[in-house]
Amino acid sequence: MTRITTNEFSGPTFKPQAFIQGERRNSKLNINAVNVFLESDPANALLTHDLITEVTMDPVLKTGSEYYDMSKDQHRRATALKIAKMAVYLEQDIKRAAGNYRGGAVERFQTSDKTPILTAQDLAIFDKRLSIISNQDPQLGTRIGVHLGLFGNCIRGNGTNEQIRYWLQEKGALFLKGIYGCFAMTELGHGSNVAQLQTRAEYNIQTDTFLINTPNLPATKWWIGGAAHSATHATVYARLIVKGKDYGVKTFVVPLRDPDTFQLLPGVFIGDIGSKMGRDGIDNGWIQFKNVVIPREFMLCRFTKVIRSEQGDDARVWSEPTLDQISGYSALLNGRVNMVMDSFRFGAKFVTIAVRYAVGRQQFAPVGDKTGKAEETQLMNYPLHQYRVLPHLAVAYLISPVAFNLMATYHSTLDQLFKASSSGDKKQLKPVSLKLKDLFIDSASLKATNTWLVATAIDELRQACGGLGYSAYNGFGKGFNDWVVQCTWEGDNSILSLTSARSILKKFTDLSKGEAQESQSFKYLSPSFVTQVLRGSKSAQIRSLEDYIEVWGIMLVKILHYCVDLVSKTKNADSISKPLIMISRFHAFHSMLQAYYDKLKSPGNSHVPDQESQAMLWSLFRLFSLYFIDKHSGEFLQFKVFTPDQIQTIVQPQLLALLPEVRKECIALTDAFKLPDAMLNAPIGYYDGDIYNNYYAEVLKNNPPEAPGPGKPAYHEVLTTMLRRDYEPQENLSKLGK
Amino acid sequence: MTRITTNEFSGPTFKPQAFIQGERRNSKLNINAVNVFLESDPANALLTHDLITEVTMDPVLKTGSEYYDMSKDQHRRATALKIAKMAVYLEQDIKRAAGNYRGGAVERFQTSDKTPILTAQDLAIFDKRLSIISNQDPQLGTRIGVHLGLFGNCIRGNGTNEQIRYWLQEKGALFLKGIYGCFAMTELGHGSNVAQLQTRAEYNIQTDTFLINTPNLPATKWWIGGAAHSATHATVYARLIVKGKDYGVKTFVVPLRDPDTFQLLPGVFIGDIGSKMGRDGIDNGWIQFKNVVIPREFMLCRFTKVIRSEQGDDARVWSEPTLDQISGYSALLNGRVNMVMDSFRFGAKFVTIAVRYAVGRQQFAPVGDKTGKAEETQLMNYPLHQYRVLPHLAVAYLISPVAFNLMATYHSTLDQLFKASSSGDKKQLKPVSLKLKDLFIDSASLKATNTWLVATAIDELRQACGGLGYSAYNGFGKGFNDWVVQCTWEGDNSILSLTSARSILKKFTDLSKGEAQESQSFKYLSPSFVTQVLRGSKSAQIRSLEDYIEVWGIMLVKILHYCVDLVSKTKNADSISKPLIMISRFHAFHSMLQAYYDKLKSPGNSHVPDQESQAMLWSLFRLFSLYFIDKHSGEFLQFKVFTPDQIQTIVQPQLLALLPEVRKECIALTDAFKLPDAMLNAPIGYYDGDIYNNYYAEVLKNNPPEAPGPGKPAYHEVLTTMLRRDYEPQENLSKLGK
Repeated sequence: MTRITTNEFSGPTFKPQAFIQGERRNSKLNINAVNVFLESDPANALLTHDLITEVTMDPVLKTGSEYYDMSKDQHRRATALKIAKMAVYLEQDIKRAAGNYRGGAVERFQTSDKTPILTAQDLAIFDKRLSIISNQDPQLGTRIGVHLGLFGNCIRGNGTNEQIRYWLQEKGALFLKGIYGCFAMTELGHGSNVAQLQTRAEYNIQTDTFLINTPNLPATKWWIGGAAHSATHATVYARLIVKGKDYGVKTFVVPLRDPDTFQLLPGVFIGDIGSKMGRDGIDNGWIQFKNVVIPREFMLCRFTKVIRSEQGDDARVWSEPTLDQISGYSALLNGRVNMVMDSFRFGAKFVTIAVRYAVGRQQFAPVGDKTGKAEETQLMNYPLHQYRVLPHLAVAYLISPVAFNLMATYHSTLDQLFKASSSGDKKQLKPVSLKLKDLFIDSASLKATNTWLVATAIDELRQACGGLGYSAYNGFGKGFNDWVVQCTWEGDNSILSLTSARSILKKFTDLSKGEAQESQSFKYLSPSFVTQVLRGSKSAQIRSLEDYIEVWGIMLVKILHYCVDLVSKTKNADSISKPLIMISRFHAFHSMLQAYYDKLKSPGNSHVPDQESQAMLWSLFRLFSLYFIDKHSGEFLQFKVFTPDQIQTIVQPQLLALLPEVRKECIALTDAFKLPDAMLNAPIGYYDGDIYNNYYAEVLKNNPPEAPGPGKPAYHEVLTTMLRRDYEPQENLSKLGK
Repeated sequence: MTRITTNEFSGPTFKPQAFIQGERRNSKLNINAVNVFLESDPANALLTHDLITEVTMDPVLKTGSEYYDMSKDQHRRATALKIAKMAVYLEQDIKRAAGNYRGGAVERFQTSDKTPILTAQDLAIFDKRLSIISNQDPQLGTRIGVHLGLFGNCIRGNGTNEQIRYWLQEKGALFLKGIYGCFAMTELGHGSNVAQLQTRAEYNIQTDTFLINTPNLPATKWWIGGAAHSATHATVYARLIVKGKDYGVKTFVVPLRDPDTFQLLPGVFIGDIGSKMGRDGIDNGWIQFKNVVIPREFMLCRFTKVIRSEQGDDARVWSEPTLDQISGYSALLNGRVNMVMDSFRFGAKFVTIAVRYAVGRQQFAPVGDKTGKAEETQLMNYPLHQYRVLPHLAVAYLISPVAFNLMATYHSTLDQLFKASSSGDKKQLKPVSLKLKDLFIDSASLKATNTWLVATAIDELRQACGGLGYSAYNGFGKGFNDWVVQCTWEGDNSILSLTSARSILKKFTDLSKGEAQESQSFKYLSPSFVTQVLRGSKSAQIRSLEDYIEVWGIMLVKILHYCVDLVSKTKNADSISKPLIMISRFHAFHSMLQAYYDKLKSPGNSHVPDQESQAMLWSLFRLFSLYFIDKHSGEFLQFKVFTPDQIQTIVQPQLLALLPEVRKECIALTDAFKLPDAMLNAPIGYYDGDIYNNYYAEVLKNNPPEAPGPGKPAYHEVLTTMLRRDYEPQENLSKLGK
């Protein structure tokens, strides 16, 4: 068929390219400045584009539309090849981060007992590369993320400095070399309830070893990414048993395979978990242990240690009470923090596709046209379509500043924790543990809220692309399937919401004890603000920019107060689980709006010099707040933050007025994400806007004529036999008598 | 590993079977009676179980967990084999429906010009079989549904009696014999806007034929199920052009392939659309026509006809104005009506899995237990989990009565239409066309609302099953991917919601003209009710059972009134598109509650004799209404149907009190769907409740030890090479001089 550009026919013709290009010509948005805003600062923006270019150009790492047609086995193999390629980048990225390409810049981390311990700064560039590759190929991101982020951080968080040096640097794990790790926490019977994991590590005083055992089927390690086929070692969460006493769940490094031959080691039983809803490139496996022996030194013992008597006839357990428990889960923090950043990048990707399609696609003539000759309306010009698509654009924008802030807080807090626990200065431990607790609250609430927001976004944006959104080649199908596990793993969203909200509620009730909140994200818990809200002297309004944040603070105070009240009446902590979910969500909204506001308000941080771009960014800010006030108008009305009239005459009209305003710059606002076609991997969303030709070309490329001839399947005889079959063969019943 | 039942260890053990079986022992629900309620009546219930047993036992039709590991090509082939098997059942089902197995019971439909035309009654059993097989294997259901439901109904709705006899009976299409049809409506450039399809059918007076052409790329027929590899004929939607004049889109039968050889016919170009988000067993294809010639008689001309002059030198177009347009889309009605029934069956399936898992799965000890020895709590005993899962149970129950009603109305209306248009009695056409319009409204609103409800249900229920919900073998992944296309195809849900709501709004504004509403589904539009609501003399309450329906009627009147008001102020029909979506949704809720109420209230219809079962069914009724009032509390408060205090002190406490009540019988209420394990195809939801062993067994069965050895992938050298690689080879830079 001829391309769309050479129509032979006089009927309505489409011009998606002209529309999309036209919007670019008319745009007043400073795309470069906005991109810097989104990527935090100029240096980060530059680095991000370098990395995006590198991973989309690399012939091993890049993904094309054939990616959507690959089988599980093909994905597994391709992912392994990509890991090997990423390993090469890893070494280069460490040199690059150090600004040192000479004289064993990487080797110095491996060569002696006094070798320096790698810091977050050393891995900063590779971490960003990993974040970016996760947007291109989520399963690859996970496979490396499990090794570096979970296995690696488990050792970094729970191991002594010697153990960190040994496993991660000398053996080479942090360089994707020597050993390959997996993170054996979850069991078939226990996911969220980590404290009840059943795998056993029994200390044998005589041999000075642990015996690792899987006592029953539900204790089987399950879902372990990398276990099925890749990992040589695991950090195993198991119950420490010493002299018959159960000390709870601790972490142990357990070798699984010979790294040279990939043979399973004695007592290690492993299987493939098989197909999943998405991310089939990850070899999730199950592991069972039967009398696996590891030396005592393989227990990670920064905070808990088995101390054997000098005579070798007794043993005792030492632990650091402040941090033993909380640090045990610190490996999960890294994942949660990264998932907030993933939410930004995933959201940006799918909203770019859907916005471009909505601007290029036309359907239905304007109401009133009976001629059939009028040009059909662009989807994006329908108010309903704007309402369906543009809030997701605001969501992607609003995630970015909070994601970068959270990442920075994570690194500084973990750094402090590392220093405090290395120095042995007990006094430092208390403030660090408080910071760590706040980080748990924020990361839990932001992880849960944003992974849910993006799951909803992908689903709704797919629907907004109609039938073409259902085609595998436009990315929404695999995108959704890959994404939604983020709502479940490394802290189930409902559980995370409950735990973060319970901690917020605790802070709220502790206010009466006069405990101050330092963190910016708990601003709404300032005693004066709380008092004003509860006394009714602070009423919600939507005038100044600050109001768009404050209404969420008012909402939070009221709902927290309601929960306290309800629990005191019902004496049942479970009676408030539904409002608790809202508290976690509203806390995340509040943090997102605050972080975005703080950044955009400060010229030195926003990097957006021109007023027109600033104004548009403020429109997105207001859109985000109003869209969710309207979505949660039930709560806003129940708690009397707003009256019905305020919702109908202020909130909703403002919301409906903002949509056409944001719509004007929607192409530029998505261009500002600067995602190349190779990253989008969805022809209806490519930059040139040639929707129909681009999509048609990908379909043809991946579906060449069939072997028995065009349109003739290999199984055509099944069908021809059916169609030719004898029809109701008639027996001559009369010949059989009466 | 040993099975869970033979624990070697003294730690907490799980007993999912004991829990689930225990609930059955304690149940007071009359499962058989409730099942009859759900399946409409005793005869239907019996037939349903017969058919379920047949399709789950049949070695060709049954699906096991290996289904989730099949590639697109394997699904395509397996689906073709299943179609051939279904063809054999089809003949038997026609005989069974007629109660006649002798003397050419089927052949009589093919043998002469005066052969009787098959009725819905003749196909009633097979239609139910198809509905049931669609729950087991949705892609198979679609493939046959496209042929019989779309291709077949396009001919039945638009063809003359002679054309119906010829294509569907004499040629054999209705018996899956002779020809295999597809439904070539959608084009790459036009989906929802059917009136602007661009494929051309130009009449040539001289040769008395049509020339079918695809004028440009966007006019390519796209998404056509069965076109890629299966169909021999298509019903093509194309613009009728006679003597240069465009008469709009009409329907034509166009042969595509030689049914014997499966070679494509001249001028027919076909390709495979390739991978989709789900339903890869359907061979969706694209079709382009280049000068394809078909005789005039291939145009379907029940309502529009090209009449050639006797001399063969001129032609004119005749059409039946009342029905020409509306009947053109009647083929889509069948699909929409079926999708409401699918919503019931799909909802029932996934809620069964999630409820059983939630009752069997334990996680976390009760709050306050510090011993670590307390039995962990069943998920279903958490109020939050009840809130996440049980409303979806109510949804499945509430869909059933309206789905059966809609199916009955569809058959009676189409029957009347067929009779009226066969008789040529113009007077009969008007009432039929009015009924048809109401059917369009109801089916659109119910299709959109319920396919969305079930999409949400599958997604939320998967999350409620934690990690095991993400495993492909528990069905949620493919289930969701297969399901969500229902929100897009055969009428995009947003468009359907808008069009049905606009028609309801029209009825509302016509009330002032004194037009009465006959249909039960528009009860809330009775003039006296509307007046009471608008005058404020009818206030919402939640006391009697009727109130649970009426609140939705009050809500509807208020929001309709608001829309009329807003349009008159803004003069912009698009300004109300967001509330219109709500109108369609609330109309569906109202219809569902009304149908359920009418059935359960009448002892002769409900078939539920005992009071305990009745009480539980009423609890589900109230739960449905309250859950959605609470979900839409924003609308209920904005429109002042309820006050904030009513929501917090009446609606929400009632809702929270109902959940533990329904929870008591949740196992029995899902057992009452009577879905055998083979239909569920999800081991965490099997009847015996042996969650862990069942799931483990399926994972092992589908993932046997790898060829190179257990846990050793075919690509292990990729990994060993990476791990053994030389690390940062050091150049001796000093040898290169300064």
